[in-house]
Amino acid sequence: MADADDDVRAAAKRGIPPHSDFNAWYPAIVEIADLVDKRYPIKGMDVWRPYGWKAMKLIDQLTHTEMERTGHQEVNFPLLIPQELLERENRLIARLKAAREAGVDPSELRIEDEPEGFANEVYWVRHAGEHELEQPMFLRPTSETAMYTLFALWVRSHADLPLKMYQIVNTFRYETKQTRSFIRVREIHFFEAHTAHADEDDATRQIEEDLDIVARLMHELCLPYLVNRRPVWDTFPGAWYTIAIDVLMPNGRTLQVASCHHYRDQWAEAFDISYEAEDGEHRHCHQTTYGMSERLLGAVVGVHGDDSGLILPPSMAPHQVVLIPVAAHTSPEVGDMVSQVSEQLRAAGIRVHVDDRDLRPGQKYYDWEIRGVPLRLEIGPRDLSSGTALAVRRTGGKQSIPLEGISEAVGSELDAVADELRRRSSQHQADCIHALPDLIQNEDGEWSLSEKIEDGLVHEVAFCGNDAAAEVLEKATGLTILGHTLDEYDEPRPCCVTGEMTTKRQHLARMY
Amino acid sequence: MADADDDVRAAAKRGIPPHSDFNAWYPAIVEIADLVDKRYPIKGMDVWRPYGWKAMKLIDQLTHTEMERTGHQEVNFPLLIPQELLERENRLIARLKAAREAGVDPSELRIEDEPEGFANEVYWVRHAGEHELEQPMFLRPTSETAMYTLFALWVRSHADLPLKMYQIVNTFRYETKQTRSFIRVREIHFFEAHTAHADEDDATRQIEEDLDIVARLMHELCLPYLVNRRPVWDTFPGAWYTIAIDVLMPNGRTLQVASCHHYRDQWAEAFDISYEAEDGEHRHCHQTTYGMSERLLGAVVGVHGDDSGLILPPSMAPHQVVLIPVAAHTSPEVGDMVSQVSEQLRAAGIRVHVDDRDLRPGQKYYDWEIRGVPLRLEIGPRDLSSGTALAVRRTGGKQSIPLEGISEAVGSELDAVADELRRRSSQHQADCIHALPDLIQNEDGEWSLSEKIEDGLVHEVAFCGNDAAAEVLEKATGLTILGHTLDEYDEPRPCCVTGEMTTKRQHLARMY
Repeated sequence: MADADDDVRAAAKRGIPPHSDFNAWYPAIVEIADLVDKRYPIKGMDVWRPYGWKAMKLIDQLTHTEMERTGHQEVNFPLLIPQELLERENRLIARLKAAREAGVDPSELRIEDEPEGFANEVYWVRHAGEHELEQPMFLRPTSETAMYTLFALWVRSHADLPLKMYQIVNTFRYETKQTRSFIRVREIHFFEAHTAHADEDDATRQIEEDLDIVARLMHELCLPYLVNRRPVWDTFPGAWYTIAIDVLMPNGRTLQVASCHHYRDQWAEAFDISYEAEDGEHRHCHQTTYGMSERLLGAVVGVHGDDSGLILPPSMAPHQVVLIPVAAHTSPEVGDMVSQVSEQLRAAGIRVHVDDRDLRPGQKYYDWEIRGVPLRLEIGPRDLSSGTALAVRRTGGKQSIPLEGISEAVGSELDAVADELRRRSSQHQADCIHALPDLIQNEDGEWSLSEKIEDGLVHEVAFCGNDAAAEVLEKATGLTILGHTLDEYDEPRPCCVTGEMTTKRQHLARMY
Repeated sequence: MADADDDVRAAAKRGIPPHSDFNAWYPAIVEIADLVDKRYPIKGMDVWRPYGWKAMKLIDQLTHTEMERTGHQEVNFPLLIPQELLERENRLIARLKAAREAGVDPSELRIEDEPEGFANEVYWVRHAGEHELEQPMFLRPTSETAMYTLFALWVRSHADLPLKMYQIVNTFRYETKQTRSFIRVREIHFFEAHTAHADEDDATRQIEEDLDIVARLMHELCLPYLVNRRPVWDTFPGAWYTIAIDVLMPNGRTLQVASCHHYRDQWAEAFDISYEAEDGEHRHCHQTTYGMSERLLGAVVGVHGDDSGLILPPSMAPHQVVLIPVAAHTSPEVGDMVSQVSEQLRAAGIRVHVDDRDLRPGQKYYDWEIRGVPLRLEIGPRDLSSGTALAVRRTGGKQSIPLEGISEAVGSELDAVADELRRRSSQHQADCIHALPDLIQNEDGEWSLSEKIEDGLVHEVAFCGNDAAAEVLEKATGLTILGHTLDEYDEPRPCCVTGEMTTKRQHLARMY
């Protein structure tokens, strides 16, 4: 593979580590490809450069389109939340915990182990100017408490339901772990949808709608994913259950890019969100949330990239096509044709960028390869005489396409790039999901795997989900339980730890 | 005017005070028209409801379009700024103040009296979780210090200039004055453009471009405005000069909705933003900023509203047209035609909302009047037989328009509404600018006006701009000096205080 080696050598000259060395490649490429600048003097808070911000806003645009399709309304809540609302949240969580400890049926377990919720992760505002504030506030880590205070005022009768609201805002978490652009940051570009429903079933239907939205968005981003219902101990504070969307990154770690939470009426009780039903009774709402973040961009960067840089799906590429005039200084007709073609493409709704800089074509090719532009179009004197342009796909392959009706041909090329990204990434994910080897227990009662497992894989296993058994499983494998899939095994199988028969198909992996 | 009285009575029923009682009307209408909810438990931080947020985003969209037209790039900087950068800003301002006190030529005065800049107005973040942060941070009141730290890294050579960046973000000021929705809030939806140039002249040309952008935006918003170069003591910290855009609100107060600052190379020196010129020399950049905020929406609400509610300019109305089927339950053809018309209008890029709620038409009319929808279209059985729809302008007047080719007719109606808003608001502003009566001094040396001035006016006067004289002028009039216009008097006139001849045409008013 001399070509691939050449690519790596050329990339190395530009400071790009090989993609196979993902933990070096990722932090390098986000800066080399002009997505962010990490030199801002606060750790974990990057500056979004124009190219990166445009890419993120195009992902947001896909989200807005889905929200409009599904009848969600966009709101914007204050960033600052009064301390008293956090205390209200904490009381909710403590109450749920007490119920759990009082020995409620496990299927009714509704809380995670951590009773403080976000209390250890929030940034506090206690001073303004020279003053100490009477009312301490914190920067939102997410907006349940802020929104539900108002939902209690907005929901009056069944006619107000379902209430479907969303916002795209900056949120904050005081991360103590190592930060990584888009993946673990302290200021997070965040999407959150919050809904209120008449009953549990309607809230459940909302979760189904959310999963349908996930499917559509991930199709646009050409990303395969795992759907896992998180174990109880990894359920969002105050939620009945959490369904997480995990993307397998090239280093074998899974990245949670989205999650949906079914709250039943737990938050509604704590925040007094109730409505008058058609029968005149007052009932608490059932609620859900659905969150996503800039991690979607992190997944796009990680999953699709290669040794030469990014490869962006056409749906969110700031430039879908870069148009490069060849030998335009000797053939003025080239410039004219480039203008014509760019106008046609723009009129067809295609995001095109003309690179008429005074540089060697090879330099331009490298620049746009790094930035992951899906399609490069070259037009030179020979193309003019043959009535064609040379179309070079970022995923590999080049061919001449006719200038006549070029918008349709370019549309097909872009579709082909997207299809190729989907094919590659789905294949990779399928290759990486392996059955977990057997768990065996030695005479001292210590558990281990019957054979060593490779790095970088997701393992699937029948597992009953029991708390104590989970500890055994995670310790023996060195992996984290992602949770169980929504599609269970057709026939019950013995749990890998307890031997109990179960249909629960669970995923284990190393998580970000 | 029986009609107007009827309107006021009908509006009062819905809780809308008369527009003439502006200080009661404004805070009521922003909630009644569903723009914001003020019941969020932090003073001065409103919740943007879907209708208000959509209106604001449409104003932002006008701004994005102008930024694209003028070659600005969108970035997104962190909200949190390290304390050390504020200290750097303070040193800059202190240095400028010292230069001023050392008796530099008044034309070289570059600072305001307040040496702390924003230090008294910022919210501090000094704690996260249970920890005290090693590096105290504050919430951006504006982003000079954050951006210029990176500009110093981004600008290397003359080829990098001009650098034209902007962002639309949330900013924060700890307001101690009374807060008012959109006008004086503690979390501000804010636009800021920051540019760096090779020299003072190029920065000056940027200010000219900014004023051209202002003119285009304000045309879209149908808002007349005053352009005033602020007095030295009201110049932005660190700026050479500030040009402010003031809108006259119905209560006679002016509202600063935008401002442009020419920084010369003052910030570039403090933040070491320099470039290698074509001659190989290293020089500091000259810089400008241009800021706007949600006050634009406040001005739209205030200036155009009337006794029945909002009147929104078509450029930023979430619904440009509301389409109301009349007697649709008895004539199914009405519903079909309403669908057809709404599809046609949407295809023509017109934002149309079909109100098919099961309510009396009168109730629907009121609802959309309050929310300021520019055009109401009614389609009933009689309209079908005549092949027309009834078009009712929110600015008054109704007429039948043909269903055939309705998009063009609706476009004309919307233009007519915008023109009428411009006509009314320009007339009102022109009516409200009066010459200032003479200033006279009594035997005790006390100054007063030769005649009493009316409330609610902007006064124009020849004034030399001298510091001490300004104090006399503001005290005698009870007004604030907005600054001098960019178009001076053709012939010098005597200054109203000192009698010195001057061409400076100055405005005085009560400011928000």
